[in-house]
Amino acid sequence: MHTGGETALLQSDNMDLHILDHRLRVISISKSGLVNFTHPLIKLIFLRNRTRCKFFSLTETPENYTVVLDEEGFKELQPSEHLKIESSIWLPLNVVSNGNASSSSQAVGVTKIAKSVIAPLAQQHVSVFMLSTYQTDFILVREKDLAVVITTLEEEFNIYKEVGGESVPMHCQDVSNGLQKNGKEAIQPTVHPVLIPQNQFCVMSLDPDTLPSIATTLIDVLFYSSSPKGDAQSSPSQDMDCIKFFSFSLIDGYISLVMDTEAQRQFPADLLFTSSSGELWRMVRIGGQPLGFDECGIVAQISQPLADSDISAYYISTFSFDHALVPEEDIMSVKDMLQYQRKEQATS
Amino acid sequence: MHTGGETALLQSDNMDLHILDHRLRVISISKSGLVNFTHPLIKLIFLRNRTRCKFFSLTETPENYTVVLDEEGFKELQPSEHLKIESSIWLPLNVVSNGNASSSSQAVGVTKIAKSVIAPLAQQHVSVFMLSTYQTDFILVREKDLAVVITTLEEEFNIYKEVGGESVPMHCQDVSNGLQKNGKEAIQPTVHPVLIPQNQFCVMSLDPDTLPSIATTLIDVLFYSSSPKGDAQSSPSQDMDCIKFFSFSLIDGYISLVMDTEAQRQFPADLLFTSSSGELWRMVRIGGQPLGFDECGIVAQISQPLADSDISAYYISTFSFDHALVPEEDIMSVKDMLQYQRKEQATS
Repeated sequence: MHTGGETALLQSDNMDLHILDHRLRVISISKSGLVNFTHPLIKLIFLRNRTRCKFFSLTETPENYTVVLDEEGFKELQPSEHLKIESSIWLPLNVVSNGNASSSSQAVGVTKIAKSVIAPLAQQHVSVFMLSTYQTDFILVREKDLAVVITTLEEEFNIYKEVGGESVPMHCQDVSNGLQKNGKEAIQPTVHPVLIPQNQFCVMSLDPDTLPSIATTLIDVLFYSSSPKGDAQSSPSQDMDCIKFFSFSLIDGYISLVMDTEAQRQFPADLLFTSSSGELWRMVRIGGQPLGFDECGIVAQISQPLADSDISAYYISTFSFDHALVPEEDIMSVKDMLQYQRKEQATS
Repeated sequence: MHTGGETALLQSDNMDLHILDHRLRVISISKSGLVNFTHPLIKLIFLRNRTRCKFFSLTETPENYTVVLDEEGFKELQPSEHLKIESSIWLPLNVVSNGNASSSSQAVGVTKIAKSVIAPLAQQHVSVFMLSTYQTDFILVREKDLAVVITTLEEEFNIYKEVGGESVPMHCQDVSNGLQKNGKEAIQPTVHPVLIPQNQFCVMSLDPDTLPSIATTLIDVLFYSSSPKGDAQSSPSQDMDCIKFFSFSLIDGYISLVMDTEAQRQFPADLLFTSSSGELWRMVRIGGQPLGFDECGIVAQISQPLADSDISAYYISTFSFDHALVPEEDIMSVKDMLQYQRKEQATS
């Protein structure tokens, strides 16, 4: 068991796991219901003076909008037939490299935490909801699973709980009253069908002070892209091989945007920035049927083989499906890998 | 009777009256219902590519929001208990100086048209709805009154109807089938009580291309100013002597904003512009009880004495009350004038 302070010097190749100070809800808004939520959503996205919400994410997929937000934000949304609310409180975890991490991997995203976080939690039947952003990867776990999470991960990590801006070291006995890891081997998880749409995606950020400059474009893309334009031009994204996917998050003052290159062209080129390599990403959408929130091991199913091949990946869970983004140049090998995985399971 | 062409040269001190090519509806949205209309209203204000609406005006008053918009815009608003719709179609008229107008008056706004338009229409029992903007003064009349309007005004004006971008000269026989002016003397109109709030107002404009730059501020002011701010600072406008009044219009590509100096401070100083004199205006709000749409002579009641004194005035009708704006330095004499008018009526 690790403590902070003096021993930290001896553990510079270890990483810290922070349990952030947000209690989150995961909801979906139906496509046709979005108009009824324009008022609160615009407030949460653009009017920081008018809300205490500090964790907000909105992702459009073909089936609905997924909103992840803290309780302050959740209060803004009126109950409606268009709203589905996952009943749990979710806590975001965040892995932070503790000094000079000695990992040889150059990969980023879930790949870096596949073996240390994702796989162990899947083995302990802890369901996770992933939210990768430009800045980091949030691993959301249910508040009720926190004891198991800490017990499972404290061998690998120094665990801290953020409380009012302070990082407080945490140990299993702080939450568990002696609860043990359940130690069961994970049941072989279902291998879900995947879809690989043709769009190229970018993962971008923006100085929060310049958010007003892109407000009308962002509002247009988020709230009006399903309605026809005056000039009624047909859009290439209506191609059946492409997928509607747009994600915006504003978390602790940091903005992250995931959009395809077609949406990107609508924004002024000089305000959004991406990593220096300017990489484009392809999507692997996981699930033939809506996945639900209880099945474990879905993230592990794809992040494990990516980690084995050291392929970077962003991962965004939504209300119905999961989405991994992998570098464009790796999409063929990822595809082969997933086909192999399916065959393996079929014959096992 | 005037015709265009050759005789126009002889009538250079006359003015043209244009019947604009918009068929307008006048509606009100309740304060609590605005959240339900945020989606269509933001579209009409900011997303010109997504709508064919060419005439849009939104005015917030203490009691409700008044929206004046053409039929393309009206289609965007779903019926709701929060919406009140005046049943008529209204047509906007616009007076244009025809060459070197020889009027000695330096006054602007309704004052310039008080004697030539407002008074004659009141005498003919034509109800008008006024909408002054930074650029011009729209006189809205009911479509069903058009024949009377033309018959009444064609002695003073060359009348044109805008049809698909063309100005077509119009005469009484074009619309009336020989309808005569009714020639009745107007009944002495009710002199309504007036309120003179303490706020100072400015009448401003904005290059439409820079509208996106003020989008978040404008959205904040229009849609969120009634909800408390995060920092819960008390606002001077909650002073009982001030009035909530904010008007935005986007008409044929021109933007006009009427706001008090407190609202103005929220906008970047370099984007909004006003006339070179940078005048401030005070408001005269007309009506103790909601005025309705049928009473005639309300605009005349105030614009006549202003014209007699050559005092400029903007005039904005809303669903419930009328509002005149007069130069700050003239407010005392306007006040005296209106008091005198009330006394006159009381003794007559």
